[in-house]
Amino acid sequence: MQGKKKIIVIGGSAAGPKAAARARRMDENAEITIIQKAPDLSMASCGYPYYVGGVFDDRNMLLCTPTGVVRDPKFYLNAKGIVARTETEAVKIDRKTKTVTVKNLKNGDCEDISYDKLIITAGAMPRKIPVPGSDLKGITTLQSMKDADYLRKIRDDKTITRAVVIGGGLIGIETCEALQLAGIEITIVEMLPQLLTFLDWELAKLVENHVKSKGANVITANGVAEFLGENGRLTGVKLQNGTELPCELAVVAIGVNPNTAIAGDAGLKLGETGGLIVNEFMQTSDPDIYAAGDCVESLNMITGRNVHAPYGDLANLQGRVAGENAINGNSAKFNGTIQTGICKVFDFAAGSTGLSEKSARAAGYNDIETVINASPDKPGFMTGLLLVTKIVAEKKNGKILGVQCVGPGDVSKQLAIWAMAIRGNLTVEDMINADLPYAPPFSLAIDHSIAGAHIMQNKLKGRMKGISCSDVKKRVDAGEKLFILDTRGPDEYEQMRLGIGEHLIPIGALRNRLNEIPDDKNAEIICFCKISLRGYEAARVLEGRGWKNVKVMEGGVMAWPFTREKKYG
Amino acid sequence: MQGKKKIIVIGGSAAGPKAAARARRMDENAEITIIQKAPDLSMASCGYPYYVGGVFDDRNMLLCTPTGVVRDPKFYLNAKGIVARTETEAVKIDRKTKTVTVKNLKNGDCEDISYDKLIITAGAMPRKIPVPGSDLKGITTLQSMKDADYLRKIRDDKTITRAVVIGGGLIGIETCEALQLAGIEITIVEMLPQLLTFLDWELAKLVENHVKSKGANVITANGVAEFLGENGRLTGVKLQNGTELPCELAVVAIGVNPNTAIAGDAGLKLGETGGLIVNEFMQTSDPDIYAAGDCVESLNMITGRNVHAPYGDLANLQGRVAGENAINGNSAKFNGTIQTGICKVFDFAAGSTGLSEKSARAAGYNDIETVINASPDKPGFMTGLLLVTKIVAEKKNGKILGVQCVGPGDVSKQLAIWAMAIRGNLTVEDMINADLPYAPPFSLAIDHSIAGAHIMQNKLKGRMKGISCSDVKKRVDAGEKLFILDTRGPDEYEQMRLGIGEHLIPIGALRNRLNEIPDDKNAEIICFCKISLRGYEAARVLEGRGWKNVKVMEGGVMAWPFTREKKYG
Repeated sequence: MQGKKKIIVIGGSAAGPKAAARARRMDENAEITIIQKAPDLSMASCGYPYYVGGVFDDRNMLLCTPTGVVRDPKFYLNAKGIVARTETEAVKIDRKTKTVTVKNLKNGDCEDISYDKLIITAGAMPRKIPVPGSDLKGITTLQSMKDADYLRKIRDDKTITRAVVIGGGLIGIETCEALQLAGIEITIVEMLPQLLTFLDWELAKLVENHVKSKGANVITANGVAEFLGENGRLTGVKLQNGTELPCELAVVAIGVNPNTAIAGDAGLKLGETGGLIVNEFMQTSDPDIYAAGDCVESLNMITGRNVHAPYGDLANLQGRVAGENAINGNSAKFNGTIQTGICKVFDFAAGSTGLSEKSARAAGYNDIETVINASPDKPGFMTGLLLVTKIVAEKKNGKILGVQCVGPGDVSKQLAIWAMAIRGNLTVEDMINADLPYAPPFSLAIDHSIAGAHIMQNKLKGRMKGISCSDVKKRVDAGEKLFILDTRGPDEYEQMRLGIGEHLIPIGALRNRLNEIPDDKNAEIICFCKISLRGYEAARVLEGRGWKNVKVMEGGVMAWPFTREKKYG
Repeated sequence: MQGKKKIIVIGGSAAGPKAAARARRMDENAEITIIQKAPDLSMASCGYPYYVGGVFDDRNMLLCTPTGVVRDPKFYLNAKGIVARTETEAVKIDRKTKTVTVKNLKNGDCEDISYDKLIITAGAMPRKIPVPGSDLKGITTLQSMKDADYLRKIRDDKTITRAVVIGGGLIGIETCEALQLAGIEITIVEMLPQLLTFLDWELAKLVENHVKSKGANVITANGVAEFLGENGRLTGVKLQNGTELPCELAVVAIGVNPNTAIAGDAGLKLGETGGLIVNEFMQTSDPDIYAAGDCVESLNMITGRNVHAPYGDLANLQGRVAGENAINGNSAKFNGTIQTGICKVFDFAAGSTGLSEKSARAAGYNDIETVINASPDKPGFMTGLLLVTKIVAEKKNGKILGVQCVGPGDVSKQLAIWAMAIRGNLTVEDMINADLPYAPPFSLAIDHSIAGAHIMQNKLKGRMKGISCSDVKKRVDAGEKLFILDTRGPDEYEQMRLGIGEHLIPIGALRNRLNEIPDDKNAEIICFCKISLRGYEAARVLEGRGWKNVKVMEGGVMAWPFTREKKYG
């Protein structure tokens, strides 16, 4: 190489600064420039909802290093030797001359700057709702620092009493919590029949129940028909079914699209998801141009298909790879994603890694087994909190395809365990005896994840026939006469029961009360308890006594997502 | 088989009840008997320190199911169809006649009972200190429910002001915390030069500093010479160096030995560790006898050597395998352990999975690389807490051999991640782009574990030369003239510094103050900062400018286990 390598990075949020910093560490002498449209750099955008919600008050915490230095152009220049041009837009890429035309948004001046290697980290754009009224004041997204400032001011000013969040995904849910904490009456509107579509329905329903228990209103399977307004200001949201929701604020959070405008104009190849196609080196169809973050599509390592996976952690990891390769040639790899995500939902967390049952079936996996496990994360004497987990595995080989987990317990650790299991191509048999860190302050002696694998093993080996709460509910609602056996204690039954005609025989009395079970040894019997461990034991008792069609309702009362009869008092 | 299968389980703490319950689920008709010497069954023995410490007050919580039913013989009979004979000792196994002689400890009666399959889960016995005075009143272990009751009463009675805990392992540390919380003045005495020997010295030292910061006294590299007493009661502990520690209570926690007395008498094969030898089916040298839990030795899956690994989680997992195989023949497997353990230490947790540097070298791994990473577990705006992690990997292939982690942050999740990585045979390269659940309430965008892998990758690829805090300290103490570069800000330096003659140049000023660096491009320069990320950046800057012997002091100020100069003020 003659002279100093010139690296241009388009985009200064997550992937861009990471790529630039990594490039710098690979080559102290390269000329590295970040082009950033917004006034801020290196924003912790995943933290916006917590700033809006008042978890912390200092806006700079979203922008600063762990030791409190704001990551502004001066910081980039001094600490990293990187030129960061903010309020500057990249408007055109000329691949022949290897130049980027940039426009100074403060004065409108344009300039061509040349590169040896270009890294595109242009991020994603929030999707808009193409309905009347969408230009009214009071409608926003939560995508930019500006949006965060706007919503935080609303929180602080306390002028607004009612808001509608459109979209029940990660950002929608996080925004709902933030505004709810600010004392604003919230309705979430979701087009699909459930919140958080990375979850299967029955787990999403548990989250929905929790959101509602916090006082937020949730409307699913309904879209926005129109934004209503007066004098240019939002006054309400009209839904497709005609419902009108009066409100002064609407936050649109229906997902994002890769921001590929100038990349597309420059002829770089885009994939079916709309994201830039990159290889494992984060290299686009032009070998001198790399890309990373929310503007690219990534390989789903399980299905082998490309997906748009706009996660902050992947943006950073991909940026690191792009930055290294832009300097060193293609030495570093990003092999893909298993789409691990998590979201705080008031006192719950909810997340997923790998495939849900729904996404597994959509991807063509038909020979799969699923299991739902409910248990505390720690012993009762250490104030364990509930976890509800659904595991999806291939029947033929026990390969773990995906795991979802929700609840007030330590969801994050559970998902991390399973994410590593999937990354290591582990099977259910491998998880059976996983060697995890156990002490009572941290987990059960048999960790929730391992217990889930045990149940899955029992199912795969034909030792347990499961049935989901949803299936039981459907059949009860359809008027089927089922023998449903609640094996809990009478006190538990008094406090809370399903109220679906279940028959109570505590597990400790079952062997002496077999006469209450249908005589017909082929009769279908559905056992459950609080978490369905005793339900499973009951099933084994009955099977041992000759009953042939005994099922366990997975997750028991704790996983039941429908109304329960409760005794208050 | 003619008739009902007869299963005897010797031992009713963890592995035994699990084996019995699993056997029952495999065969509703088997006759299953648990022989238990103690009056209680199925005690959550890992919970003793938290009961002693007053984390909870209801003793039954150690003995009951998650729904509050005490696991006594009646419970076992009714709920599980298992006969549990408490206060009954198995005194002899006759393998020819397949009988166990049991002795009723209440009346001394003996009886022979026969088995088709026997499961030995006899646990372990606390090691004793063979010094004068060890029969004095006031000396105890924390191994049994009786011990827990004794110590809890001491806590509640508040009659004791000074105690000595002998042994700085898991139980010793947990006991220390429990008694310290009770307002008792504590000294921990450890024979070896450090606490928690599953940690390497520098991480153990961080734990020791934390223990001391809580007001407990720690004496390492010193053993007990004698227990001192008056009128049969303990009055003090005399150490090998002559120090006398006045105290009214001594808790001996110097480890456990497998309880194999009657198994050994019966001619079952014992291993070098003193534990029963079992195969992957948990079968002893007698095919009709299985064993599980603290009385067996297990395969360390990394080194291929047998170890004694008395962990509560493994006892349960092994018990499950033994119970299944006792009924079904050898269908279930326990493949071994990677010796994952964790311990709460006041506001810290400390744990390890796989091999420490010390144990790796002892096992013959010579071509290894290590790295120490310090960072918060979450972003600053979510009140992230410090984690200090040491990773050990093989140089030739990057295989992860072990990880230790300590600090106030989420140590448990970190260890779970690494335990799964090791179980999946992952390499550092695999961990570089691990796909973990990220949202600000749960982790950094680049999780602490992944950042550790990044640093390790940089070292393995020769991009970073590391040096440990210990090595720096040793060389400074030896009077070596080193150029040690602190790259933090002046405010950070004012607040807390190492005070080892370091030179302060904030990273942002480094490129303009290169004249302060030794002219000699071969001079050794050691860079650090708070966590040594800026230290690494500084090293890259200097290397980019031609310096050839630049090192990064790993973990920076946060991992420095020696005295620091602090400004209070």
